[in-house]
Amino acid sequence: MDRVKSDVFWFEVRARDGACGARAGALGTAHGAVETPAFMPVGTQASVKALSQEDLSAIGAGVILANAYHLYLRPGTEVVEAAGGLHRFMTWDGPILTDSGGFQVFSLAPMRKITEDGVAFQSHIDGSRHFLTPEGATEVQLALGSDVLMCFDECTGYPATHETAGTSMRRTMAWAERCKRRWDARSEAQAGQTLFGIVQGSVYEDLRRESAQALAAIGFPGYAIGGVSVGEGKEEMRQAAGWAAEELPETAPRYLMGVGDPEDMLDAIALGVDMFDCVMPTRNARNGSLFTTRGKVNIKNQRYRRDFGPLDEACGCPVCRRYSRAYLSHLFRAGEITALRLNTLHNLWFMLELAAAARRAIYAERFMAFRQTFLDTYRAGV
Amino acid sequence: MDRVKSDVFWFEVRARDGACGARAGALGTAHGAVETPAFMPVGTQASVKALSQEDLSAIGAGVILANAYHLYLRPGTEVVEAAGGLHRFMTWDGPILTDSGGFQVFSLAPMRKITEDGVAFQSHIDGSRHFLTPEGATEVQLALGSDVLMCFDECTGYPATHETAGTSMRRTMAWAERCKRRWDARSEAQAGQTLFGIVQGSVYEDLRRESAQALAAIGFPGYAIGGVSVGEGKEEMRQAAGWAAEELPETAPRYLMGVGDPEDMLDAIALGVDMFDCVMPTRNARNGSLFTTRGKVNIKNQRYRRDFGPLDEACGCPVCRRYSRAYLSHLFRAGEITALRLNTLHNLWFMLELAAAARRAIYAERFMAFRQTFLDTYRAGV
Repeated sequence: MDRVKSDVFWFEVRARDGACGARAGALGTAHGAVETPAFMPVGTQASVKALSQEDLSAIGAGVILANAYHLYLRPGTEVVEAAGGLHRFMTWDGPILTDSGGFQVFSLAPMRKITEDGVAFQSHIDGSRHFLTPEGATEVQLALGSDVLMCFDECTGYPATHETAGTSMRRTMAWAERCKRRWDARSEAQAGQTLFGIVQGSVYEDLRRESAQALAAIGFPGYAIGGVSVGEGKEEMRQAAGWAAEELPETAPRYLMGVGDPEDMLDAIALGVDMFDCVMPTRNARNGSLFTTRGKVNIKNQRYRRDFGPLDEACGCPVCRRYSRAYLSHLFRAGEITALRLNTLHNLWFMLELAAAARRAIYAERFMAFRQTFLDTYRAGV
Repeated sequence: MDRVKSDVFWFEVRARDGACGARAGALGTAHGAVETPAFMPVGTQASVKALSQEDLSAIGAGVILANAYHLYLRPGTEVVEAAGGLHRFMTWDGPILTDSGGFQVFSLAPMRKITEDGVAFQSHIDGSRHFLTPEGATEVQLALGSDVLMCFDECTGYPATHETAGTSMRRTMAWAERCKRRWDARSEAQAGQTLFGIVQGSVYEDLRRESAQALAAIGFPGYAIGGVSVGEGKEEMRQAAGWAAEELPETAPRYLMGVGDPEDMLDAIALGVDMFDCVMPTRNARNGSLFTTRGKVNIKNQRYRRDFGPLDEACGCPVCRRYSRAYLSHLFRAGEITALRLNTLHNLWFMLELAAAARRAIYAERFMAFRQTFLDTYRAGV
């Protein structure tokens, strides 16, 4: 068994599917282990939108995400630190992965100025001025008490020329080295907190491979593939993930950032990706778009007004076990807050269960057949 | 023991406080019994805002309210009927009381024309035209499957002249008789669904007494006091409730509509009121205004940003047992949906627990001392 270990962090590949790159295993943190491939619910502001932490436990969430940019600005790193870290602040005992905030600095901040040293930006909340460096972003995440820290990266926009993408990627690689150095310097004090590098390089094969090799040369306990799901096509995303996955060490976990459409997740699992996050399942839920084994359902649709069956006959989630399509449709149409929560519970359960089913299929060495059966039903429609 | 019984509906007074009019007991419906005095959470559109039915069970809600006007318009009476009634539609096995919608026709509909026969109005949702009569409002509630129906009434605005209030009240009394007649005619088919009359008469003693006497003469299994909490002062409300309570049969439950401030509830319990509902605890919760035994807390307040203690040390609710003021404050400031739910859970728990404490005090024949102790702490402030 391949195993990566860094303090209390570990990753084990326990099974590989012969017909593709898919692999199943587990990763361990100071706050427990999770099986991979894993879907990670997004709790940007220390809250998975519309859910409580009791809800997350009830649907079997493993790792959850939080966002360093958001928490640094509000409630402020020092508040979370004073609470005893993010786990205590939000009362979540499971593993937490924090995104460094690179993506948010570039997508949310109204003003930003990037230099080799770091990024000056204004808060999207109150316009206050801040300067984040790779070292600073690492310190913020250490202070938050995150189990898995992400390197501070520049998320290259789409489309980008080869030159722009190359310059941006190489800056991110220099930053990754600085993050690693800072994390190394603090690792004794912060035993149990691990750090992942992030591959960039846009849609260019040479840049993606160069980036993955550069990170592997620095050496991280885990690797993320970033700069995807930013507007490129599905095939471009699949390629970018594939090139990176080929260059990354077999023994370390691979995390495809921002990807979490059911079909995309299964594609990436086949390429050897182990971890996923995406706001789409929760955002769609709040817009009334719900996953079912027979495809997406728009719960606002007229046809559900008098449909007293469960949302998905094949689903074992707390919502499908109790409430009808008609009631969910009514709640959504009536603008009831509870619609947001019930829809979110269902969509996250769906993604967590899909990842669990993928794991079982990999252990049974029938992942590609499982994927095809899932897609045939999913695409057949409701 | 006094006991009122109508089909499966019953009400028993089991204890009286010697020092005031307060009484404790229970009422029973086809969907179970609840102890009185009882606070009833409001689920206008077949959903207590921000909570699921699992939540309502978890905080020990007894009777919940729904609103016939809202459900008649959306999802439509026929949808709820097709679902097998409101209990099945929303999956709530406990008792449900429906307001007839009189109040909403007068407060929400953009156009309305009142005649002796009934009220023509436009839907506040889509402008469609409707005509509701006392008989129609009774039929809607029977079709919804409500355990406790309310008579269709005209809620007299405030202020109103004695003449206007008198005309309005007498019309409501005529309507009450028509509701009763329709309910009587249907009572064999609808065994287990009971009907309450509603006292009106604004702030005038003679009208309130006349109204209560008129309803008592018709004879209902229970009586509500309506037309309060519409802008009058606290003393006027207390008086209106007191006059009505004095005229209403000792053996029947008394329900003060729309009242649910902690102080007002205790005042009305002392006058012999048994049931309460109010949107204020849930609406305040959504605005960040939270009850504690030491008074109201505005969770947005700066002072709670770094306050890692529970919202109320004396509270045993699921929120106070797990989350800190700092976290609740963060969720609210950050605009997280979960803030609405956690705040609502707490405020409803507070009201349900206050009603339970009042019941215990009545059984112990020390209600007035309990009330004073509660108010002394509550008014001392946080």
